[in-house]
Amino acid sequence: MNDALVGIDIGGTKIAIALADVDGGLFARRRIPTRPDLGPGVALENICLSIEEMAAEADASVSSIGLGCPGPLDIENGLVLSPANLRTWNRVPIVEKFRDHFGVDIVFDNDANAAALGECIYGAGIGFRNVFYVTISTGIGGGIVLDGEVYHGVANGAGEVGHSIVKPDGIRCNCGSIGCLETICSGTHIARRVQERVDSGEGSLLRDLVDGGAAPSGETLIEAVKQNDRTARELWDETCRYLAIGLGNAITILAPDVLIIGGGISAAGDLLLEPLRESIPTYVSMIPADRINIVPAALREDSGLYGAVALARSAPAVLSTLNAASVSQN
Amino acid sequence: MNDALVGIDIGGTKIAIALADVDGGLFARRRIPTRPDLGPGVALENICLSIEEMAAEADASVSSIGLGCPGPLDIENGLVLSPANLRTWNRVPIVEKFRDHFGVDIVFDNDANAAALGECIYGAGIGFRNVFYVTISTGIGGGIVLDGEVYHGVANGAGEVGHSIVKPDGIRCNCGSIGCLETICSGTHIARRVQERVDSGEGSLLRDLVDGGAAPSGETLIEAVKQNDRTARELWDETCRYLAIGLGNAITILAPDVLIIGGGISAAGDLLLEPLRESIPTYVSMIPADRINIVPAALREDSGLYGAVALARSAPAVLSTLNAASVSQN
Repeated sequence: MNDALVGIDIGGTKIAIALADVDGGLFARRRIPTRPDLGPGVALENICLSIEEMAAEADASVSSIGLGCPGPLDIENGLVLSPANLRTWNRVPIVEKFRDHFGVDIVFDNDANAAALGECIYGAGIGFRNVFYVTISTGIGGGIVLDGEVYHGVANGAGEVGHSIVKPDGIRCNCGSIGCLETICSGTHIARRVQERVDSGEGSLLRDLVDGGAAPSGETLIEAVKQNDRTARELWDETCRYLAIGLGNAITILAPDVLIIGGGISAAGDLLLEPLRESIPTYVSMIPADRINIVPAALREDSGLYGAVALARSAPAVLSTLNAASVSQN
Repeated sequence: MNDALVGIDIGGTKIAIALADVDGGLFARRRIPTRPDLGPGVALENICLSIEEMAAEADASVSSIGLGCPGPLDIENGLVLSPANLRTWNRVPIVEKFRDHFGVDIVFDNDANAAALGECIYGAGIGFRNVFYVTISTGIGGGIVLDGEVYHGVANGAGEVGHSIVKPDGIRCNCGSIGCLETICSGTHIARRVQERVDSGEGSLLRDLVDGGAAPSGETLIEAVKQNDRTARELWDETCRYLAIGLGNAITILAPDVLIIGGGISAAGDLLLEPLRESIPTYVSMIPADRINIVPAALREDSGLYGAVALARSAPAVLSTLNAASVSQN
């Protein structure tokens, strides 16, 4: 019977579950719908049942469980606190639930921290000591991994680069502050800015695409940029400029060995990476340009799932086994 | 014969030296002139001689030496690289010099990191796990201490909040970037902004003070603010606003347990601390306001000297003794 790390990546529409070995080899994976409209009870039962079936099929025994979930969370007490896309999951004692059911260590963290750890252990962060991971998606999240461990900071607040201030005279963010990086560069606000330009009445391919039924989204903007639309280019340049300022400021404070960029908007690839690699060093004067590494996430849509596996790997019982094995090899 | 930690705090005009026990009890201290015009050789000889005399007078033997110095430094190779106020100290192998002379561990770091560690071990950071220290003086420097150790980051670049971008359409900084926090809030740039307002011809107490011979400095501005001058108040409010944005962004990334504020401008006391305590939480949305601690440096002009002692305390030989003592007590 094999030992299995279990990773659970909870999202607003679906939940991904994987069984893996400590090297990140996934030997089983499954997706189930989240259905937040039904509340957390059904989903949690489905997760337990799925894990049991997957473990039985793989002839594996669960050694620990890692759990990534959108915030806000109460990590100390293992509670989900009604995230924006999981409103019905209000003060859900998710850690207690799985611990009672499986009787193993449960390691619980927010989705960005999990993805950061996943990239660090199994993806683009391999070989780097201090890693800053940012996900540019509907919102902008971040996670910090120092010496192989998630750095949480006070109130688990570290790494929230999406809410750093890049335009003090800008618009108000959902969070209450004014001029957060998210208010310009998140998927939600890229869509808002695209819609504003379309509504302004100026002719552009961007307007044609939206009038033709495309969503006023990051993907539509990127499509129009690829076709050299001038309006789209202006919006994209502005997006990249503020991303460079916000991410540059994070680098100025944290001086990570690598900045890993993930999330849906990062699918733009070089269209995003090249301007960032060019302009971030102009905003980060205290670190030589050749020491500023900016790379795409390697695990793509699976950063969070591998992240949950990496959380499971960081469970005390697993780490002590790994350390014992490492000592006996030396 | 007592064991002595030796702290050396090198500045552009004077060098402070102290002998201390591991609890930060200073049992000897001395100041000597730096005289950068004479080059590093004379100063280094004077430091060695002073330490020998101080140790002999105190019947103490040097167990390790901590050394804080303005950057840029090559910490790995123990070199001073021609700092702005020590131009003649160009590629000085200062660590080798002291190691050869005294035959003990030398711990070498830049002045802001040293002061951060000093405040953390002996000052306002006692009892806090993760500390961010900022010094607002001629320039603006920062240092990060995590779990009792200086966090350096890649290229020893971490914590340089003075060069985070707070006004992307602002003026160019000495460092080459545009809109760094320093270009508004450092002593140098406060003086520039005061001079600009005086030159504009508008009547104000600030203008009267400068016309009367006061330097257009942070101290003069603070004096005029205390006397409720409207022009001075405007300049001060702008200074505090951008400090709150820059320090707030650092808190959003690092989520330290405490922000410690030192340096000459921090002599403004509550005039500085109260606006920062009020406005920083409005820029830091992801950490509850009651978890954002902002305190003044406790060691004042001695942060750097205690910092050098704290560096000496972090020498391997000293730490292993401390750990052994701690184990035998438990």
